[in-house]
Amino acid sequence: MTITIVEVGPRDGLQNEAVVVDTHTKVEFINRCVAAGVQRIEAASFVNPKRVPQMADGEAVLERLTPDAASYIGLVLNERGFDRAVNTQVDEVNLVVMVTDTFSQKNQGMTTQEAMAAVAAIAPRAKQAGLPVSVTLSASFGCPYEGEVAVSRLVDVATQVADAGIDELAIADTIGVAVPRDVQRRLSAVADAVDVPLRVHVHNTRNTGYASALAAADAGVTVLDASLGGIGGCPFAPRATGNIATEDLVFALERSGYDTGLDLDALCLASEWLGERLGRPTPGLVAKAGGFPPA
Amino acid sequence: MTITIVEVGPRDGLQNEAVVVDTHTKVEFINRCVAAGVQRIEAASFVNPKRVPQMADGEAVLERLTPDAASYIGLVLNERGFDRAVNTQVDEVNLVVMVTDTFSQKNQGMTTQEAMAAVAAIAPRAKQAGLPVSVTLSASFGCPYEGEVAVSRLVDVATQVADAGIDELAIADTIGVAVPRDVQRRLSAVADAVDVPLRVHVHNTRNTGYASALAAADAGVTVLDASLGGIGGCPFAPRATGNIATEDLVFALERSGYDTGLDLDALCLASEWLGERLGRPTPGLVAKAGGFPPA
Repeated sequence: MTITIVEVGPRDGLQNEAVVVDTHTKVEFINRCVAAGVQRIEAASFVNPKRVPQMADGEAVLERLTPDAASYIGLVLNERGFDRAVNTQVDEVNLVVMVTDTFSQKNQGMTTQEAMAAVAAIAPRAKQAGLPVSVTLSASFGCPYEGEVAVSRLVDVATQVADAGIDELAIADTIGVAVPRDVQRRLSAVADAVDVPLRVHVHNTRNTGYASALAAADAGVTVLDASLGGIGGCPFAPRATGNIATEDLVFALERSGYDTGLDLDALCLASEWLGERLGRPTPGLVAKAGGFPPA
Repeated sequence: MTITIVEVGPRDGLQNEAVVVDTHTKVEFINRCVAAGVQRIEAASFVNPKRVPQMADGEAVLERLTPDAASYIGLVLNERGFDRAVNTQVDEVNLVVMVTDTFSQKNQGMTTQEAMAAVAAIAPRAKQAGLPVSVTLSASFGCPYEGEVAVSRLVDVATQVADAGIDELAIADTIGVAVPRDVQRRLSAVADAVDVPLRVHVHNTRNTGYASALAAADAGVTVLDASLGGIGGCPFAPRATGNIATEDLVFALERSGYDTGLDLDALCLASEWLGERLGRPTPGLVAKAGGFPPA
């Protein structure tokens, strides 16, 4: 079976790093991933530059990317962001809905219902512009404020979001508390309720990320998010890694019999390059240990 | 279902750390694990002190441990080591057989067949002394020298070792290349061939360790090895972590519905203490991120 890995490092990864990288480095980051075979890549976000200064250069990044080399994804949280994104060469837009109200209020200043209303407003505009829309459901496995998230709540939000007419639904373990059994349970419940292709986004905050990603693949999900080098850990807790590392996920998937179409050696070299740019080794392990069996 | 975690940090972990810790610290390490609920613990090895100076104080460590507080395991590689171990208060002995000849020659200076002959010589002596014998099959999932290890080779070695009359067989991914599917496949093949309880020992060298440990539990193995803090990475590759962290494994297992009987908070505190003694934070993640849901 083939798994498509969506590279989220240039946005979700860099946004949560302490070091702010320049436009040139972001473009090289993206180009290196594309050269390693990545076909979908979260390239920029179109959010308030005052709130997220690391991502202020979204337009400049997209301007410098090679057209059609991959599907470039732009994150937008509201119509204002969509207005910016639609004027660039983005190929897809990604929206975010937080499954719990407390998390949604704290992060986006709106309730889950209001975030879903934003999706409903943007989705038809994106369709008209010929841009596929994916929606990420944050805190699908647990909330840092409310704790456990009921499966029924997740299914309820997923159903309403899917009804907005979107192309893909990403179930996200934003805080890294998922385990394989819970992945199976939630994916099964969501898949029973909605008729939209699913994608899974997990973090390795508590060392369960790779197990959860493999469980998602085993459950039939063919699109997984990862970030080169596993960057994106909270800058205030340097070893609390964030995203799962693209190269480590490729190793785990390929060794499990899946095909990713990605070049592991090229990813490992890119991960080392990225670590140099960020001033510390990336948290991923395969770039250090090497693949297996050795070439 | 209940999973017993064998704490291997005081031996397998410390042996592979750059910092040599004193007897007092080893004893406190063990006592802290016991206080957190650990029931079996690899406390010492009785190998040539010239080759492994970190472990030269095996007798001194065991002398200072509280009798019957846990089952203390001593590693022995030959009869000379057994002669030392049997004169201490060890409760069990653990022997090692490397599944590939090249690895066995390089590490123990003998072929796999010769290592199996050592097991056959020691097992009856241990039985006579009332000491249970476990044997760890190193490189069961891959060899750093020979590459892929055929399942048939593993089964052949496992069968011969089991015939020596031992109490437990530990299938070990010494170099961290296992993935869940391979765990299932190899455990199933070994379980079909031998009639000895199985135990699984995995490393997180390439970020597949936790997924593999969970897969072993799902396959019905009820004894798993782990090392507090995940210590035991090769000192010459500081971020290439070695063992899976006891506290992270407890988090993953308990969140998956297994019962470990261990106190996660006490383990996290002990992991932080251990990091201070070793002069760097331990690689485990749960001690930094905290459990979930928050207490």
